[in-house]
Amino acid sequence: MAKNILLLNGPNLNLLGSREPEVYGSTTLADVERAAMAQASLVGAKLTAFQSNHEGALIDRIQAAKQEGIDAIVINPGGLTHSSVSLRDALAGVALPFVEVHVSNIHQRETFRHHSYLSGIAVGVICGLGVDGYTAAIAFALKKL
Amino acid sequence: MAKNILLLNGPNLNLLGSREPEVYGSTTLADVERAAMAQASLVGAKLTAFQSNHEGALIDRIQAAKQEGIDAIVINPGGLTHSSVSLRDALAGVALPFVEVHVSNIHQRETFRHHSYLSGIAVGVICGLGVDGYTAAIAFALKKL
Amino acid sequence: MAKNILLLNGPNLNLLGSREPEVYGSTTLADVERAAMAQASLVGAKLTAFQSNHEGALIDRIQAAKQEGIDAIVINPGGLTHSSVSLRDALAGVALPFVEVHVSNIHQRETFRHHSYLSGIAVGVICGLGVDGYTAAIAFALKKL
Amino acid sequence: MAKNILLLNGPNLNLLGSREPEVYGSTTLADVERAAMAQASLVGAKLTAFQSNHEGALIDRIQAAKQEGIDAIVINPGGLTHSSVSLRDALAGVALPFVEVHVSNIHQRETFRHHSYLSGIAVGVICGLGVDGYTAAIAFALKKL
Amino acid sequence: MAKNILLLNGPNLNLLGSREPEVYGSTTLADVERAAMAQASLVGAKLTAFQSNHEGALIDRIQAAKQEGIDAIVINPGGLTHSSVSLRDALAGVALPFVEVHVSNIHQRETFRHHSYLSGIAVGVICGLGVDGYTAAIAFALKKL
Amino acid sequence: MAKNILLLNGPNLNLLGSREPEVYGSTTLADVERAAMAQASLVGAKLTAFQSNHEGALIDRIQAAKQEGIDAIVINPGGLTHSSVSLRDALAGVALPFVEVHVSNIHQRETFRHHSYLSGIAVGVICGLGVDGYTAAIAFALKKL
Amino acid sequence: MAKNILLLNGPNLNLLGSREPEVYGSTTLADVERAAMAQASLVGAKLTAFQSNHEGALIDRIQAAKQEGIDAIVINPGGLTHSSVSLRDALAGVALPFVEVHVSNIHQRETFRHHSYLSGIAVGVICGLGVDGYTAAIAFALKKL
Amino acid sequence: MAKNILLLNGPNLNLLGSREPEVYGSTTLADVERAAMAQASLVGAKLTAFQSNHEGALIDRIQAAKQEGIDAIVINPGGLTHSSVSLRDALAGVALPFVEVHVSNIHQRETFRHHSYLSGIAVGVICGLGVDGYTAAIAFALKKL
Amino acid sequence: MAKNILLLNGPNLNLLGSREPEVYGSTTLADVERAAMAQASLVGAKLTAFQSNHEGALIDRIQAAKQEGIDAIVINPGGLTHSSVSLRDALAGVALPFVEVHVSNIHQRETFRHHSYLSGIAVGVICGLGVDGYTAAIAFALKKL
Amino acid sequence: MAKNILLLNGPNLNLLGSREPEVYGSTTLADVERAAMAQASLVGAKLTAFQSNHEGALIDRIQAAKQEGIDAIVINPGGLTHSSVSLRDALAGVALPFVEVHVSNIHQRETFRHHSYLSGIAVGVICGLGVDGYTAAIAFALKKL
Amino acid sequence: MAKNILLLNGPNLNLLGSREPEVYGSTTLADVERAAMAQASLVGAKLTAFQSNHEGALIDRIQAAKQEGIDAIVINPGGLTHSSVSLRDALAGVALPFVEVHVSNIHQRETFRHHSYLSGIAVGVICGLGVDGYTAAIAFALKKL
Amino acid sequence: MAKNILLLNGPNLNLLGSREPEVYGSTTLADVERAAMAQASLVGAKLTAFQSNHEGALIDRIQAAKQEGIDAIVINPGGLTHSSVSLRDALAGVALPFVEVHVSNIHQRETFRHHSYLSGIAVGVICGLGVDGYTAAIAFALKKL
Repeated sequence: MAKNILLLNGPNLNLLGSREPEVYGSTTLADVERAAMAQASLVGAKLTAFQSNHEGALIDRIQAAKQEGIDAIVINPGGLTHSSVSLRDALAGVALPFVEVHVSNIHQRETFRHHSYLSGIAVGVICGLGVDGYTAAIAFALKKL
Repeated sequence: MAKNILLLNGPNLNLLGSREPEVYGSTTLADVERAAMAQASLVGAKLTAFQSNHEGALIDRIQAAKQEGIDAIVINPGGLTHSSVSLRDALAGVALPFVEVHVSNIHQRETFRHHSYLSGIAVGVICGLGVDGYTAAIAFALKKL
Repeated sequence: MAKNILLLNGPNLNLLGSREPEVYGSTTLADVERAAMAQASLVGAKLTAFQSNHEGALIDRIQAAKQEGIDAIVINPGGLTHSSVSLRDALAGVALPFVEVHVSNIHQRETFRHHSYLSGIAVGVICGLGVDGYTAAIAFALKKL
Repeated sequence: MAKNILLLNGPNLNLLGSREPEVYGSTTLADVERAAMAQASLVGAKLTAFQSNHEGALIDRIQAAKQEGIDAIVINPGGLTHSSVSLRDALAGVALPFVEVHVSNIHQRETFRHHSYLSGIAVGVICGLGVDGYTAAIAFALKKL
Repeated sequence: MAKNILLLNGPNLNLLGSREPEVYGSTTLADVERAAMAQASLVGAKLTAFQSNHEGALIDRIQAAKQEGIDAIVINPGGLTHSSVSLRDALAGVALPFVEVHVSNIHQRETFRHHSYLSGIAVGVICGLGVDGYTAAIAFALKKL
Repeated sequence: MAKNILLLNGPNLNLLGSREPEVYGSTTLADVERAAMAQASLVGAKLTAFQSNHEGALIDRIQAAKQEGIDAIVINPGGLTHSSVSLRDALAGVALPFVEVHVSNIHQRETFRHHSYLSGIAVGVICGLGVDGYTAAIAFALKKL
Repeated sequence: MAKNILLLNGPNLNLLGSREPEVYGSTTLADVERAAMAQASLVGAKLTAFQSNHEGALIDRIQAAKQEGIDAIVINPGGLTHSSVSLRDALAGVALPFVEVHVSNIHQRETFRHHSYLSGIAVGVICGLGVDGYTAAIAFALKKL
Repeated sequence: MAKNILLLNGPNLNLLGSREPEVYGSTTLADVERAAMAQASLVGAKLTAFQSNHEGALIDRIQAAKQEGIDAIVINPGGLTHSSVSLRDALAGVALPFVEVHVSNIHQRETFRHHSYLSGIAVGVICGLGVDGYTAAIAFALKKL
Repeated sequence: MAKNILLLNGPNLNLLGSREPEVYGSTTLADVERAAMAQASLVGAKLTAFQSNHEGALIDRIQAAKQEGIDAIVINPGGLTHSSVSLRDALAGVALPFVEVHVSNIHQRETFRHHSYLSGIAVGVICGLGVDGYTAAIAFALKKL
Repeated sequence: MAKNILLLNGPNLNLLGSREPEVYGSTTLADVERAAMAQASLVGAKLTAFQSNHEGALIDRIQAAKQEGIDAIVINPGGLTHSSVSLRDALAGVALPFVEVHVSNIHQRETFRHHSYLSGIAVGVICGLGVDGYTAAIAFALKKL
Repeated sequence: MAKNILLLNGPNLNLLGSREPEVYGSTTLADVERAAMAQASLVGAKLTAFQSNHEGALIDRIQAAKQEGIDAIVINPGGLTHSSVSLRDALAGVALPFVEVHVSNIHQRETFRHHSYLSGIAVGVICGLGVDGYTAAIAFALKKL
Repeated sequence: MAKNILLLNGPNLNLLGSREPEVYGSTTLADVERAAMAQASLVGAKLTAFQSNHEGALIDRIQAAKQEGIDAIVINPGGLTHSSVSLRDALAGVALPFVEVHVSNIHQRETFRHHSYLSGIAVGVICGLGVDGYTAAIAFALKKL
C-alpha cells in the first residue's frame, strides 16, 4: 500500500521566507509543502501538510493521523519544541514514528533552544540544513519508517 | 443546595484507554466521565465533564465555571501539568478549590514530570491509582470541598 | 501618518478587576482598553486592543499586526510570559518593537515568575505599577516607537 | 483468602491531632487507625497499624510484614519521606505494593518536602486530602493491590 | 502637603550621556535631574536629586530621606542593583515606597544583570525605556506613592 | 514558676572530649551537662539533659518534653543537623522555642555541614564557641525563652 | 595587660531600634554600644565601637585595629555579610580573631542571607538572639580570644 | 597481637540472599559472616559481625569498637551510605580505619546512590563485586590496616 | 572545479556493524565509506574518508584538509563529541563548513551525550537516522557547502 | 580453556612508584604487572599488560582484545576516568566485562575525580586500596568474569 | 606623546608585604608603586598609582582617568574582583584598555575567587606571578595599549 | 648551572598566525618559538620547544622533561585546557613548576573556556596578552622558577 506521510509545522512556521530570513532563508512554507508533496508523489506515496500556531490544533491533528492511517510524521514544532510536553504526549500517544526537523541550527542559538521535549522520543533529528532538512527527513521517512 | 463539580481533562486524555495502555490502563475517558457523573448523582450532586487538547479552551472553561456556580474542580491537566503557568493562573483567578489527578505515578517517569505548576495551589494531589484516582478525588470533592 | 498601536493581553487578563484584587487591583480590562484608546486618540494615534486565553490566537494576532501596519505593540503576556517560546518567536518574526507590561511586581512572586521569555527581545519592561503600567508603556510607544 | 493490609506511620505522626492543627487537622492517629480497621473489616479484610519515631523500627516492621503475609502497605513516612534511602530499600526489599500518603499538601510547603525517596517505587501517592487520604489509599489497596 | 520625591542614581550614572551612548543614549544626568525637578514642580511637588559612586553615601542618603519627610524614592542603582544587599536593607529599613529604574533593558545584557537585589522589595520596576524610564517612574510616584 | 530547660545532644556528642579534640576540645559531655545544671540552678531554674545516638530516641524525648512542661530546648543535633527532617518536625510539632548549638564552626567544615534542617525554625543558632556555646545558649534560654 | 575589643557594626545597623522592629527589636545601637562598653569595663577590659554604612570605612577601621593593639573583634557586618569579599580579606589580612553576630536569625530569611563570606574565617557565629547576641559574643571574646 | 576486625552491615542487609536477588545475589548475610570469620581465623585474626536496621545501633556499635580494641572496620552501610552524616561522624570519632563495601555497583543505579557520606573518610571503597567484595575488603584489612 | 568532501569518523566508529548492533545497525564503516564515495562520484565530486581512534590524528587530518583544498567536512566524532574542545578548535581553525552526524539518536541516550562541543559551530546536525544520516549529510554538503 | 585477562593502565600510571608517592605508594608499574602475571599463572590463566598515555592507543588495544579472545579486563584509566567518553564506548563496543581500579581513594580528592565515565558500565569498582586494588580486581576477574 | 598609565590597587592591597606573606610575599605596595614608576620612566612614560579600600573612590579615580588622558590601566581589584559590578561598569564606561593583575593564583584558592567581574572586559589577566605580575602587566601596557 | 625551560604548545597552536587571526593574531608558532629561544639565550638559559595535537604526546614529553633536567615549563595547552585531567596529572606527576599561557582572553569567550584543569596546580596564569604572554611567562620562569 502507498505510504502516507504527515508533514507538520508548528507556530510561526507560516512566516517561513518572511521571518528573520538571515536565520531561516527565503523559501516559503507553501514552497516547502509543494516540494514535499512532489517528493512523496515521485515514489508513489502521499504527503499531507498541516501548519498551526495553536498547540491544541497540532495535537488534534496528530490524534487524527492515527485514524487516517498515516505511517510516519515529519514535524518542525517551532517554539513548542522547547515548551510543550503535551505535543510530546500526543506523539507518544499515537505511537507513530516521526523525524524532528529544525530549519536553523538550534545549537547556535539561545540556550533555551538547546533542549527539545520531542527529541527523546523521535526516531531522529535534523537541524541547520535549512529547508533541505525537510527533504532529508521526508526521504528518510519514505524509505525507512 | 446540590454540590456542583467540574471534571476537567487536559491534552491527550481523550486517548485514555487507547494510548499507552501499559501506562494508563484500558478504561476510556467516556467510561471515566460516565462513572464520575454516576458517583455524583448518588449523593445528589451534579458533575460536568470537559476535555480539551487546547490550553486556552481549558482556561475559558475554568473561567466559566465561576459564573456557573461550580463548587470544586477535579482536574487531570495532562502534559500542561508541567508547562502551563496560565492554567495555574486561571485556577488561582477563579479561586475554586481543586484536586489534581494523574492516572500514572508521575514520580516513576521522566524527571520533567516530577514538577507540577498546579500542585502548589491545589488542595491535594493523587497520582498512580489509575482511573481510581478520579473516583477518590471526586469522593473527596463531594465530601469536603 | 497616524501611529498605530496594538494592545495585547494574554491568558486570564480578562479577569482583571475580579481576579485576586489584592494582587491586581480592581480596574477591569475593559476600563484599561477604553483608557488606552482615549490616550492614543489624544495624540491622534490609533490603538487596537485584543485579549485571548489562547496562545495560538495571540500569535495569529501578532502576525496579522504586521499586515495591518501596526507600529508598535504593548503586551501583557500573562502566564505565557514564563512558558511560551512561540509567543517570543511571533514577536521576533514580525519584528515590531514592543513593551512588556505586568500589572503586579513579578519579582515579589514565585521564582518561576522571575524569568520572562519576552524580555530578552522587548524594548523595555514595566512591572508593579498596576494598570498605570499600561499607560506608561503606551505613552512610551506613542512617543518613541 | 482475606486481604491483609499494613498501615504504617512514621515519625511524629503520633502527634496527629495535636501537632500544628492548621496544617494537619484535629483527628488523632488513634482515630485514623480505628477508622482504617473498620474500613478493612467492612470488606472482610484485616488491617494492622504501626507507628514509630524510629526509622529502624519501621524497617524491622516492613521486613516482618513479608513473613506475616501482608498483601499491601499504606504508609505515611513523615519526615523520613525526604531523607530515608533505607526505608525505600526496605520497601523494595520486601517487594510489597504500597501507597504513600501525606496528610498535608507537601507541594505547598518547604522545597525540601517536594522530593520523596519513596514515590519512585510506590504504586501511587496521595497528599493534601487530610486524614481522608488514608481512607482513599486503603480503599485502593483493598480493591486493587 | 506637597509631595516630596527623592531621585537617586548609583555608580557611574554621572557618566550618563557620555558612557556607552549606544546602550544608554546621550541625555546627561544633569538633563535628567533638571527635567525631573520640572516634572515635579508642575504638580506642586518637590524633587531632590542625588548621585554617588559610593554605596555608603547612597545608604546615608536613603536614611536621611526618612528624617526629611521624603514620600517616595525613584532609584537607578547602577551596578549595585546586582551586588548590594546593604542598599536593599537601607530601603527596607526606612520603609519608603520606591520605583526601580534602569535606562537599558537589563534582560538583554549579561546574565548577572538579570537579578536585582532591589526588585523584590520595590513597588515596581521599569527598564529599557531610556531616560523616559525616569519620567514614567516619577509620574507614578507623584500620582500613587 | 521555675523555668524548665531541656538540653539535648545528638549522635556522637557522648564522645565529646575524646573525639577529634582539635575540632571539639577536651571538655566531656558529662562536664557540659553538670555545668549546665549548675548554671540553671543559679537562677532557680531546672535543666534536664539527654543524649542519644538514635534519631528516634531524640524525637521521643522532644515529644515527652511537651508533657513535662519544658519551657525551652537547647539542642546540639550532631550529624542529624544536616539530614533529619523528622527531628525538625518533632521540634515544630511540640512548638517549643529552641536554640541550636554547634561546638565547632560548621561553616569552616565540609560543604554538607553548611545547611541545617533546624536553623529555619530555631530561635537562634550559635556555632564555633566550643562548649561555651552551650553556656551562651542556656543563658539566653533562661532569660528570654 | 587589659584586653582590647573592637565592636564593629556594618551598614544600616545605626537604624537598630527603629528599622523593622518586628525583626530587629527596639534597642538602639547606642544602647548596644553603651552596654558593651560596660560589659568590658566590668572585667577590666576596653571596648571600642564603630559603625559605618561604608564598606571602605569598615576595612580602614579593621586595618587600624591591628596597629592599636586590638585583641579581638565582634562584628555584625549587616548586608555586607552576603556580598563583601573585601571585608573578609581585611579580617584575614589583620589576622585578628573575631566573632560574627546577627541580630535576627538569618536562616529564617531570604535565601541570599544564608551564606556569609565571613563565617568561613570567623571563630564563631551567633544569630537570632537579638541584641543578646552581642553580649554573648563579647563575653566569649573577653574570656577566650 | 591478633588482629581484630569488625564487620558491620547496615539496614536491609539482613535481607541479603532474599531481597532483589538479581541485584544482590543469593548468598545470605549469615553465609557472608560465617565466611568472613573463617577468612579471619585462617590468619589467626578475629572478626566480629554486626547488622542492624537502626542507625543509632550502628553508631553505638562503632563507638564500642574503640573500647574493645578493634583494629579496622569493614562496613556495608546500606541505604545509610547516602543519608547518614552521623554514621560518618561515628567513624571519624573513633578514628578507626575502614573499608566501605557495596554488593551492587552503585554507579549503575539511581543518581542518589552515586554519593556516599562515608567514602570521603574511608581508606578505600569496593562495589559491584557481589559478596566477593566483603572477602576482598577483609583480605585488605587483615593485611594492611 | 569538482567539489571535495572529507568524511571523518572518530573513535570506535571502525566497530560500526559489529558494536552494539541494536543501537548502531549492521552496516560496516567500509560499507558506509564505499557508499559515500559512490554518492560523491555520481555528481562528479570527490570524497576522501578517514577514521581514527586518536583525537590527535583527527585534528592532524582536519588541519591537512585545509591544504588539500577540501570544501566541506562530514564528521561523526564518536565519543569525542562530548569531550573534545580541541576537535572543535581544529574545525574552527581551518574554517571549513561541516555537518555533524550521529548514527544513533543521542537524545535518547545518557545525559552526557546530549551536549556536543561541535554543534555550536557546525552548519547542521543529523542524528538517529542510522547510516542514512551520512547519506543525507553528504547530499547536503555536495549541494550547499 | 585457560582464562585470558587484559590489564590496562592509562595515562601517567607508568609513573607509579615515582609520581606523588604519598598518594600512590612506591611500587612501580613493572612490579604491578609482574605480580599480576604471576597471580594469573598460579591459576593457569594468562594475563597481558598494556599501558599508554594515549587515549587512542588504549582504545585500539581494547578493540584488539576482542579479537584475541580476552575474557575480561582490569583497567585503571588514570585521568581518562573523568574525561573520556570514547574509552567508555570502546569498552561498551567490545562488550567485555571489566573491573575499574584506582590506586588512590578518588573520593578524597578533587571533586572532578568523583565522577567516572566508566563506572556506569563496569562490573565493579575498587579504589583506595593502593596496588592491592589490582590484586583484588584480578582475583575477582579470574574467579567470576 | 608620552604614554600615561594608571596603576590601581583595590581593598587591602595597602597591606601587601604584611598581610598573609605566605600567600602574597613580602614586597610592600610602596615598593611595587616605586618600581612601577621607575619601569615607566625608563621608556619615557608616566605612571600614576592609586590605592583605596573604598569601591566608590576607585570608581571616582577611574572616571577621572578619562579626563586626565590616561592611556591604559593596570588594576588589581582585590576582593572587589569577585563582587563589584560597579567597578566593571566604571571601566567599561571610560572605555580604557586595562590589564587585571592578581598577586596570588586565584584558581588555587576558594571557589568564589574563581570568577572575576572584570576579566570579561579586560584585555588580559595575569595571576600567581607575585608582584612580578605588575611588572609584566605594565610592560605590556607600555608596549601594546 | 644554566636554567632549562620547556615551552609546550597543545592542539591547534601549530595554526597560530593562520587560525582565526582576529582572535589569535598573526605571529606564527615558529616565530614564537624562535623568539622564546632567543629570550632564554640572552640570560644564558636553554629553551626547548614542542607542539603536538596529541594529548598523549604532550604527556610523554612532560614525563621526559623530568629525566632531561628541565627546571620549569611554560605551557599553552590549547583546547586540552578545558578537558584533560591526564595533562594535569602529568604535570603534577613530574612536579615541575609551570606557567599556563593563553594567547586570547579566555574569559571573553564561551563559558566552557572559563575553567582550566591546569590552573589549580600552575604557579601562575597569563591570558589575553597575545603572544606577549609567552614572553612574560618565560621571563618569569627564567627569573623565579
